[in-house]
Amino acid sequence: MLQSLLLSVGWLNSSTSLLAVAIEGEGFGKALAIAIGLTGLALLLTSAVFEELAARVGLPSVLGNLIAGLVIGISGLHILVLEGGEVNTSFISLIHSLTHVDLEVIKEVFDGPVKTIFENYAELGVGILLFTIGLESDLEDLLKVGLQSAMVAIVGFGLPFVLGFFGLTLLFHVATLPALFAGAALTATSIGITAQVMQDMGVLKSKEGQIILGAAIIDDILGIVILAVIISIVETGKIDVGNGISLILIAASFIMLAVLMNQFFGSWFVEQSEKLKSPKSIGRGAFTLLLLMSVIAGSIGLESILGAFAAGLVLSSTKYKEIFIERSSVLVNLLATVFFVSIGSKTDLSILNPSVPANREGLIIAAFLIVVAIIGKVTSGFFAFSEEKVNRIAIGTGMIPRGEVGLVFAGLGAATGVLPPSIDVGIILMVIFTTFLAPPLLRIVFKSSESTVVETPEVS
Amino acid sequence: MLQSLLLSVGWLNSSTSLLAVAIEGEGFGKALAIAIGLTGLALLLTSAVFEELAARVGLPSVLGNLIAGLVIGISGLHILVLEGGEVNTSFISLIHSLTHVDLEVIKEVFDGPVKTIFENYAELGVGILLFTIGLESDLEDLLKVGLQSAMVAIVGFGLPFVLGFFGLTLLFHVATLPALFAGAALTATSIGITAQVMQDMGVLKSKEGQIILGAAIIDDILGIVILAVIISIVETGKIDVGNGISLILIAASFIMLAVLMNQFFGSWFVEQSEKLKSPKSIGRGAFTLLLLMSVIAGSIGLESILGAFAAGLVLSSTKYKEIFIERSSVLVNLLATVFFVSIGSKTDLSILNPSVPANREGLIIAAFLIVVAIIGKVTSGFFAFSEEKVNRIAIGTGMIPRGEVGLVFAGLGAATGVLPPSIDVGIILMVIFTTFLAPPLLRIVFKSSESTVVETPEVS
Repeated sequence: MLQSLLLSVGWLNSSTSLLAVAIEGEGFGKALAIAIGLTGLALLLTSAVFEELAARVGLPSVLGNLIAGLVIGISGLHILVLEGGEVNTSFISLIHSLTHVDLEVIKEVFDGPVKTIFENYAELGVGILLFTIGLESDLEDLLKVGLQSAMVAIVGFGLPFVLGFFGLTLLFHVATLPALFAGAALTATSIGITAQVMQDMGVLKSKEGQIILGAAIIDDILGIVILAVIISIVETGKIDVGNGISLILIAASFIMLAVLMNQFFGSWFVEQSEKLKSPKSIGRGAFTLLLLMSVIAGSIGLESILGAFAAGLVLSSTKYKEIFIERSSVLVNLLATVFFVSIGSKTDLSILNPSVPANREGLIIAAFLIVVAIIGKVTSGFFAFSEEKVNRIAIGTGMIPRGEVGLVFAGLGAATGVLPPSIDVGIILMVIFTTFLAPPLLRIVFKSSESTVVETPEVS
Repeated sequence: MLQSLLLSVGWLNSSTSLLAVAIEGEGFGKALAIAIGLTGLALLLTSAVFEELAARVGLPSVLGNLIAGLVIGISGLHILVLEGGEVNTSFISLIHSLTHVDLEVIKEVFDGPVKTIFENYAELGVGILLFTIGLESDLEDLLKVGLQSAMVAIVGFGLPFVLGFFGLTLLFHVATLPALFAGAALTATSIGITAQVMQDMGVLKSKEGQIILGAAIIDDILGIVILAVIISIVETGKIDVGNGISLILIAASFIMLAVLMNQFFGSWFVEQSEKLKSPKSIGRGAFTLLLLMSVIAGSIGLESILGAFAAGLVLSSTKYKEIFIERSSVLVNLLATVFFVSIGSKTDLSILNPSVPANREGLIIAAFLIVVAIIGKVTSGFFAFSEEKVNRIAIGTGMIPRGEVGLVFAGLGAATGVLPPSIDVGIILMVIFTTFLAPPLLRIVFKSSESTVVETPEVS
């Protein structure tokens, strides 16, 4: 009966094509949901396997995540493809057979939204990780070692830059601009990787941990300044000293702001949140502050994660500190993993293939850069002047990983077309090597150390 | 010195345009970070204000979220624009002045990634909400009231559909196909809204709560079946009975699977996770199961959130139940808010404007649909046969909100072009009205009820 009723409506045919559009839209959403779910599953399962292996042989979980990224990323199965390359066709076929959505639509889903979403998880993850690092920090301790941190940062910034720049220009006859980019990439320190390893080992609150943290923050700021300077050189042919100085002043003001807010704002803010009737307001308040500080940092040209760290620092003297740390650990547990896996997934090991000529040159340059990268940062540890005994090797080792910051420099250099392939390969290999080397090295140097290890409970 | 060095390189000029590309890419990322941060801040602050107001006048926080969505969505400030319409130009200018990124690039950022990311948060939020609802459910209680839930679901599905379809065709002389879509939209129940309100009130574990939950799940499955049937009618002009039956069988198998997994798999799975050395493995294991069940549900044509609910149910008899609930609450607290605000933000109140002729007709049809929507669902509550005293009015009221499910029906109908404007307006108004009405109504009927209120601690 219904059938004949419907057929009598008459305009069924005219609307069919419009429905097709609607159903195609439906297919996009369906394919997206399944694509995110399966990519997420692959990410979680692979990192579970390699974290477990890392735990059993006594290596840090971060290394397990990085290797998981190699396995599912552009060097391996092509399941998590965040930049460059195509997603594994078998994986696309699997989603096609589950959803019956057109292959083309599934490819579109992977090209756009899936990348956007996993990049966003990764950024959120490292942001919340830095927020908890800020929460776990003690402002007084950080300020107490401020001078030592500054010395470590300046030496760990200047030495690799100078050695790298003059080594490349004088020994390898590399042109000035690529040598500048390579030098800049050598200055970077990945605060995320070192902080996560130290947090897992419970040495974040040791004197060494606080010096590394402070130095990594200063290093990040110096890195942003050098990047701005190099870009102004490429753009205008001139060094914009004014811009560099104003960036340093802005960064210093931001740190001052965080210190003042820690003293005069954090506890007041939490008390105000407490007064609200809505039961969720305290946690929401903290997250609002995290977003706000990240936006401020991003707006004034700093990295957003420095804002997240500052927000954690502001709340680190409040009575909810421990609760905030515990609650954030749920997000860190899931999302920081995405961040570390994503670093591994973007790592292209095919540049190790020596049958490509640029790779052979790159390997030689990489060997040089790696030596400079390690010597420069390890030396910086010895500038942590202190009357107390501190493990200076551990401090220098903590500064070694270039991680995501190094990749930003390499990526920006490559995108400008300024870098010859061999230098590009050399920088990327240096970033990979220092990033993968640092977690196991850190474990060794902290284990053999006289540092005051404060055991923090492991989060599950 | 460096300047002259650089100028002597010579190929500075040729690389400038390439650098512009790189910097533009950088600008996109920067604009995206700030856009997400500021949109997130607007969302959190607005919902904080309206949740607080709701808490002070004794209304559910969900209503506060929905109203916050009206304020920042397409009916208000145009800050959170997930479908249709343009983002507020002042908001775009603000981001431009903070980032110095081109206005066009910022618009692109809002058109693509920002929508994708907030939609994703919303979906993740409702998924994890349903996961905790599953965790808090007691399988035995659910099965005990299974027959009552089925009765409530069938009546609450059939009655509004029949009343709506024949009312529209006979009284309003609406054509068959639009009347079918309107009837189908009347059958929906938003499990998310009712579950959140009941969870906040601590009545989720009452007999009424479990009946509503069971009925809403069955209703969801019936809704998917009717949608598939209507689409096959529009596509082929025939009712595909086989497809409808196979969908019901698949859904029944999935529910059976969840029941069996609850009995034989959940505790074993948790014990295996416990054995792993990696400290994060238990929480990760739970999240992996959540993703897996969602993907399975999505693949067999069910809603992903039913899979999330099933995953919660599977883990609800394990010893980690309380820990999982507590940990998930952090994610729910942030992300379910995004979900409810997003529903409000998509609500277009301009269709209330009576100066548009289709709106006047729509208002009359809406009035009819709203009456049918409420009568149909409230009546269904009386079919919860029970020897014990149960609050049947509360059960029926719990089924009233159409929420996101109703919007899916309306959206699909509108996209087909099958719906005349007045019917489209009528359906949307019905969805809005029932969605906004249900939270305060639920609070009234449960307060005046004889239901066994089990107080659960509020999560912060």
